[in-house]
Amino acid sequence: MLDQFDLNSKISPEEFTSGFEQQKVELMLLQQQIRSAKIPVIILFEGWGASGKGSMISNLIMSLDPRGFKVHAIGPVTPEEQRYPMLHRFWRILPEYGQVAILDRSWYREVSTARLEDKRARKRVEERFAEIGNFERQLTDDGYLVIKFFLQISKKEQKKRFEALEDKKATRWRVTEDDWRHNQFYDEYYRAFDEMVERTDYGFAPWRVIPAHDRRYAVSRVYAHVIEALQQALAAKQAGPLPAPTAPRESSDVEVEPIPSLGEYDLSKALDKEDYRRALRKGQKRLFELHNKLYRKRVPLILCFEGWDAAGKGGAIKRITRALDPRGYEVIPVAAPTPVEKNHQYLWRFWNALPKDGHIAIFDRSWYGRVMVERVEGFCTEEQWMRAYDEINHFERDLAEWGAIVLKFWLHIDKDEQLNRFNDRQYTPAKQWKITGEDWRNREKWDEYLTCVNEMLQRTNTDCAPWVVVEANDKNYARVKVISQVIEAIEARL
Amino acid sequence: MLDQFDLNSKISPEEFTSGFEQQKVELMLLQQQIRSAKIPVIILFEGWGASGKGSMISNLIMSLDPRGFKVHAIGPVTPEEQRYPMLHRFWRILPEYGQVAILDRSWYREVSTARLEDKRARKRVEERFAEIGNFERQLTDDGYLVIKFFLQISKKEQKKRFEALEDKKATRWRVTEDDWRHNQFYDEYYRAFDEMVERTDYGFAPWRVIPAHDRRYAVSRVYAHVIEALQQALAAKQAGPLPAPTAPRESSDVEVEPIPSLGEYDLSKALDKEDYRRALRKGQKRLFELHNKLYRKRVPLILCFEGWDAAGKGGAIKRITRALDPRGYEVIPVAAPTPVEKNHQYLWRFWNALPKDGHIAIFDRSWYGRVMVERVEGFCTEEQWMRAYDEINHFERDLAEWGAIVLKFWLHIDKDEQLNRFNDRQYTPAKQWKITGEDWRNREKWDEYLTCVNEMLQRTNTDCAPWVVVEANDKNYARVKVISQVIEAIEARL
Repeated sequence: MLDQFDLNSKISPEEFTSGFEQQKVELMLLQQQIRSAKIPVIILFEGWGASGKGSMISNLIMSLDPRGFKVHAIGPVTPEEQRYPMLHRFWRILPEYGQVAILDRSWYREVSTARLEDKRARKRVEERFAEIGNFERQLTDDGYLVIKFFLQISKKEQKKRFEALEDKKATRWRVTEDDWRHNQFYDEYYRAFDEMVERTDYGFAPWRVIPAHDRRYAVSRVYAHVIEALQQALAAKQAGPLPAPTAPRESSDVEVEPIPSLGEYDLSKALDKEDYRRALRKGQKRLFELHNKLYRKRVPLILCFEGWDAAGKGGAIKRITRALDPRGYEVIPVAAPTPVEKNHQYLWRFWNALPKDGHIAIFDRSWYGRVMVERVEGFCTEEQWMRAYDEINHFERDLAEWGAIVLKFWLHIDKDEQLNRFNDRQYTPAKQWKITGEDWRNREKWDEYLTCVNEMLQRTNTDCAPWVVVEANDKNYARVKVISQVIEAIEARL
Repeated sequence: MLDQFDLNSKISPEEFTSGFEQQKVELMLLQQQIRSAKIPVIILFEGWGASGKGSMISNLIMSLDPRGFKVHAIGPVTPEEQRYPMLHRFWRILPEYGQVAILDRSWYREVSTARLEDKRARKRVEERFAEIGNFERQLTDDGYLVIKFFLQISKKEQKKRFEALEDKKATRWRVTEDDWRHNQFYDEYYRAFDEMVERTDYGFAPWRVIPAHDRRYAVSRVYAHVIEALQQALAAKQAGPLPAPTAPRESSDVEVEPIPSLGEYDLSKALDKEDYRRALRKGQKRLFELHNKLYRKRVPLILCFEGWDAAGKGGAIKRITRALDPRGYEVIPVAAPTPVEKNHQYLWRFWNALPKDGHIAIFDRSWYGRVMVERVEGFCTEEQWMRAYDEINHFERDLAEWGAIVLKFWLHIDKDEQLNRFNDRQYTPAKQWKITGEDWRNREKWDEYLTCVNEMLQRTNTDCAPWVVVEANDKNYARVKVISQVIEAIEARL
């Protein structure tokens, strides 16, 4: 794909100057409009060393209000970043709705230069391609505008530019050994770049290859593309939200495993006090040892607790954390999103809460709010929750490919048991803080939630992140089952 | 101070068990209360290797709701953290109001073990002591409860514990060479710990030295201290907010320089178009070169823009950023704090926005909101803004000691000029978004703001972070003055 362009495309200085003044004004006004329309924009630049990414960005931001954009230089992965999934550092810098992020290099490092430098296995490269495709798809589905530029220059031109930089004392330090190696093995890097552009030229986030021998020509092309893309995004936004599809989106490339629906579990399962104490003590001891091993082998563990109100999530979590070294885990209570969280794609806050490798994150409620409370209460559109199953499956697959053990618990009680517990809370002063009007209101929607939960189980029970339905009418039984399942999952991995 | 305790203090198993059950219940209930009262709590543990910090923390959190606390293990400074001021990594993990942070090691690493390990200069150690004192004072003034424990064991006891750990295969890896070195040079480390405890045993954040040979005794003492401290904090909160002092707090250890008040500047200063263009072009060229040098020498630059509404902050910032490599700076627009920001001490969000060394942060409005809009509008109490000058002076001194160049601009126009610009914005369609009802309301409080600004200039004009009042009735003059001052400050440093 890279060879389809005339690298020597030019524009005369006069033609450039007159056009450019107009482009700058247009872009300035468009930035105000996308801010009002709350459209988030990502503009990323890939391309050869010395192809002019930095000065291109300087040119672009001349027309932008500095309060509305941020520029991020994406370097090689640092040791700290290496302890998180590949996309983690990009989720962190996702712009808020209405803001612009401009990236000098991007996640495409991973499938281009980095790929040649650490000679990574083909399988790993394929995983990265898949992650990137899903990432961009999730963003654009959420209303992000992703504009991708590749600045193309020839081997000869690159060499000329490196030499010019080395000629001047002030710029000599900017040319590195890596740069010269890229030039020496230009053809090899060319093939990697070409494959990258070819394979990730999605309809929802197409590449714009910019012949960059003539700087004026390149600047005017970049401006023209950005202006056009912003205009289209504004028009699409004005046309209104997407219509809901007739069925949830299927995860074509993540296999979903069958799982019994909630009615099929035997809620009479119970443990007497003595068996409970013995099993708990044994389980906690084993879990403590395993935590140590996870830490030393740098395996991250992600536990996700969902369940009916008063099903005993807090108590089950506490029985687990008591067995853990407190320096190695974190409990993340998930409540309604804050205003800043609402101004990002809904998975953003969970990406930001991931544990380091070797650490444990325990989510007390989770991203599944999207297909439960947000669906029932209408906090998101039908179209949004319908595609969320697929988005969540991909999110969890990213975690699994990073190396995480992911386990999801549904704590299941029946309606009578919930009533007992609600009443107990209501009439025991020390427990009253645990029950609110909202709990009673949710209870009235039991059947609606039941439908949602069953659908959620069916659509998101995967090999890499399985659901465990826990019969929780008896707390003893439930706590022991949770801890045993965690142990089993860790043992299976180690 | 460390030698005043009987390291062999003991408690019988029976006495311990009965007391402990009660302590656990008390702590559990207190956590609910401090959460409702929105009191943030920091509990930090310092002490010798193998003195039992980790298991002490495990014991402590047995009684805590995992949704209300986080444990942080504070390791040696990473290369990434080294690029920020010493306290940066601690500001980042400050708990929200009502939450508990438990620290295994803390900022005291810097003035104890780290101090011996990197053989740092005495001056640097003294700076760190001062920073720590001010940090804890700012936190406790803001309502944070800071509880500090030092777990004390003897050289002999430590040696015994290391040997016991090494005896078992499962725990052998936990004893490091560093640990043995600490034991070998116990006396030297003892002196450093002792000085640390002695010098930082503040009334507002006292040390609790815990003799830790007997683990049961240590646990019961730690519980007792935490319970007592929480009870006192709750009682203090119920007693109501602090009364306002009669005058702002003086910065006893940061020198304030005299500066003319706003009435003394000549607002007729102006530059014609041609001189402006020439000076601007020259200034931008020079600034570009200097940015490069800052980057290579890893000097951080912090610019802070305050001024009347419509005084031209945005325009001045833009003239600076155009000269900069976009990968090396960030503009931080400061608006009203978000709910999460409101749940932290007010400087928290600015600590979180600091640039890496070698980078530039440009604040469009800043922490000075505390002594301007928050004071005028009553968003903080009189007592709060009165101590803010001192807090800000210390904040800026921390930045300067880290190595940052800090410059603060007040863009000054007169009331007539503001009216002209407001009218221009109001009646020019492309500029209408820039003016709101709030601007007009602020204008009515011109005189109140004038008093605040003058007081702010007098109280926070320091050598390490000077104010520059910019005569801004003429935009050309103002922009050139801003850029020249930035250049001058960088040149003076390099």
